[in-house]
Amino acid sequence: MSNIKSYIDENKERILDELFGLIRIPSISSQTDHKADMLKAADYIKEAILKAGADRAEVIPSDGNPVVFGEKIVDPAAPTVLIYAHYDVMPVDPIELWTSNPFEPVIRDGKIYARGANDDKGQMFIQLKAFEYLVKTGQLKTNVKFMIEGEEEIGSPSLEAWAKKHKELVAADVILVSDTGMIAEDVPTITQGLRGLAYMEVEVTGPNRDLHSGLFGGAVANPINVLAKMIASCIDDNGHITIPGFYDDVLEVSAEDRAMLAKAPFDLETYKKALDIEEVEGEAGFSTNERTGIRPSLDVNGIWGGYTGEGSKTVTPSKAFAKISMRLVPDQDYHKISDLFKAHFEAIAPKSVKVKVTAHHGGYPYVAPSNHPGYIAASKAYVDSYGELPIPVRSGGSIPIITTFEKVLGLKSILMGFGLESDAIHSPNENFSVSRLFKGIETVSYFYSHFNEEMKK
Amino acid sequence: MSNIKSYIDENKERILDELFGLIRIPSISSQTDHKADMLKAADYIKEAILKAGADRAEVIPSDGNPVVFGEKIVDPAAPTVLIYAHYDVMPVDPIELWTSNPFEPVIRDGKIYARGANDDKGQMFIQLKAFEYLVKTGQLKTNVKFMIEGEEEIGSPSLEAWAKKHKELVAADVILVSDTGMIAEDVPTITQGLRGLAYMEVEVTGPNRDLHSGLFGGAVANPINVLAKMIASCIDDNGHITIPGFYDDVLEVSAEDRAMLAKAPFDLETYKKALDIEEVEGEAGFSTNERTGIRPSLDVNGIWGGYTGEGSKTVTPSKAFAKISMRLVPDQDYHKISDLFKAHFEAIAPKSVKVKVTAHHGGYPYVAPSNHPGYIAASKAYVDSYGELPIPVRSGGSIPIITTFEKVLGLKSILMGFGLESDAIHSPNENFSVSRLFKGIETVSYFYSHFNEEMKK
Repeated sequence: MSNIKSYIDENKERILDELFGLIRIPSISSQTDHKADMLKAADYIKEAILKAGADRAEVIPSDGNPVVFGEKIVDPAAPTVLIYAHYDVMPVDPIELWTSNPFEPVIRDGKIYARGANDDKGQMFIQLKAFEYLVKTGQLKTNVKFMIEGEEEIGSPSLEAWAKKHKELVAADVILVSDTGMIAEDVPTITQGLRGLAYMEVEVTGPNRDLHSGLFGGAVANPINVLAKMIASCIDDNGHITIPGFYDDVLEVSAEDRAMLAKAPFDLETYKKALDIEEVEGEAGFSTNERTGIRPSLDVNGIWGGYTGEGSKTVTPSKAFAKISMRLVPDQDYHKISDLFKAHFEAIAPKSVKVKVTAHHGGYPYVAPSNHPGYIAASKAYVDSYGELPIPVRSGGSIPIITTFEKVLGLKSILMGFGLESDAIHSPNENFSVSRLFKGIETVSYFYSHFNEEMKK
Repeated sequence: MSNIKSYIDENKERILDELFGLIRIPSISSQTDHKADMLKAADYIKEAILKAGADRAEVIPSDGNPVVFGEKIVDPAAPTVLIYAHYDVMPVDPIELWTSNPFEPVIRDGKIYARGANDDKGQMFIQLKAFEYLVKTGQLKTNVKFMIEGEEEIGSPSLEAWAKKHKELVAADVILVSDTGMIAEDVPTITQGLRGLAYMEVEVTGPNRDLHSGLFGGAVANPINVLAKMIASCIDDNGHITIPGFYDDVLEVSAEDRAMLAKAPFDLETYKKALDIEEVEGEAGFSTNERTGIRPSLDVNGIWGGYTGEGSKTVTPSKAFAKISMRLVPDQDYHKISDLFKAHFEAIAPKSVKVKVTAHHGGYPYVAPSNHPGYIAASKAYVDSYGELPIPVRSGGSIPIITTFEKVLGLKSILMGFGLESDAIHSPNENFSVSRLFKGIETVSYFYSHFNEEMKK
């Protein structure tokens, strides 16, 4: 029985050929003239799933681009892994900055250069080829399902409805996703958490018209001064957010998990230097990575009011505005947080002004608990391939569909990503190293037996 | 010996004719094609001063439009009054909104309609004709000088240098000015104080570029949050400004003066209703009129930073800006206040940001003390004509040249104004009632004997 390394070695050319075939289809979801390419890519993946050893695969319509579903049921009593990926890619503009044709993959210096080389066609193939290896070598003891969508780059507008409709079809024990990154080459990384978001807008109205600051200054509430005061009062001197009830649902992260998070390579001096700041600033008692990973935050994203042109104008304005967003962590609910924010701003506004608070949009926070069977299995798989435990990363950047899966399917997602910042996803000259592609296949192939074991516990 | 009322009655037509002659000269200082009109107006006034009874009058060049100087020295040992006025007027745009030709004065419903009817040709004639009456009836026991400039409406750019150069020529004991307003018809008013100004701009820089609020929010100082906090900290819960040293030079106003100021007709409910506010807001322990008259204030005139467009963008910005001005009262020096502000903002800025503070411009506050001989004489003159003491008004609107006179000539100005809000100075259909013109002449004519008496004390 060949092991995964020799399997990859033996099938190297074929694997790349198959991936390149998919990459050559310009499946840009945001451009309507690529509609036919979406279907072509979906069909290509259906065939690839079947070839890899699935029992069945089909292209299932959604309200937008279709979803490719596939499955191999080895034993109805065995655990089931649902693989999520996406076959759509970002546009290629500005095309003139590409060194080679974005839809004609080439390998330079060990890297595949093409749109989708990493995001997500390359990383999708990590999952597909690990599955293929296990099937072909008779080692698959887990049921595997595929759910590959074609609208991730435009915000997955159809997938929630699709998943609700096909809930039984995609029923599983965990979702496995390769669509995120690593801290650095050879530093195995699990994206364990994603912060949620509540985005608000505040409008403060003082007098019914702009006033002359000489004639009225000091006697009539200035909405900018008032807004500044309200914003300032939202965070105390310890960096705590003062909105009543704000922390009620925040899950405290265990000392053990914090210790794991602290293993992420991080150099404060380098960080400060890169941002050209003398000091970082945040909640007392937490490290920089904890402040962005496991703790909520409140930021003014925009503020405006009064005279903002050149020189001076002695006006006190009628209105002042701010866009204020809060990053949320499990188990904060953005609806509840939006309500708390609104109530708080209305409560602290002095009688001298009127305050209007509106919610723009929000997103749920996400975390994969480190005691989840999928998380443990992934950790062990990384130890098998890299010789060390993966660094758990909690990122502020959200993947909204992950929290949708949790809500609709009741499933946690394990994010085993193999991208690097330098892969330039969404940019010209996107690339993905062949070695990481293969290391990814190797790592994921180790996941399944660990997962089966953990599910037995 | 005729009294002032009968003198006005006998000379009514002539006074109006002479004023109309001046009004017909379109002496718009901001428009270069009216350059010849400026000289024409200056000459007209020189002749008018001579005709009124001055010993001498001349048009004296300045760096800009010339200044008309005139004088009557009755006794070198007697007190001297320097009359300041201006012969330039504002532009007339939008001309289509005028009911009649702005430079062809007409009387409708007892009001003279024309550009300059009030500001300042009409009010200048109040001074000129009171002087004429006293000369013609042999009652003038005071030396009188005239300093009539032609650049007030463009900020008096040449007058400071002119006054420095002709300091001996214009030497006097007080300056008398009719270029301000009354609280209401038949409510005699002295504009006793004008607040000064220090106008600052603050730039707060956090990280060297805009950041994703998800990835950095809570760990890196957000310059908008920081700026809001700094602004909020500048005013405490009692409405006091917290900048160290800010109040050091503030002159406390006597209980007597505050009692006089409190006599100004003011209805808080009407005020709040007009501004559509539920409550006023300001420094504890002071009334609304005191807050705008005798107390300094700090207002944000403009603020901006981050994303201010429609919808939402999860950015934490690199920079945030605010324009902040402080209204000053005697004896605050705007240079000193600007320095205190700068030092304070630099001191309270956390190490996580950089702060740049620049001063835009400033102006000195002004007050005519109520025990000044000129102030007392004016008060008594109002009692003679209106039967009651004038209401002292401290206004936020500044007349920079008044503080310049104090600095350069060492003289206080007494502002005996007869305008009303409805006179529409600077607007189409400027007007001035004939009755106020004559009541003004009457009032000012009473000033001189009182002034001589007060100067003897």
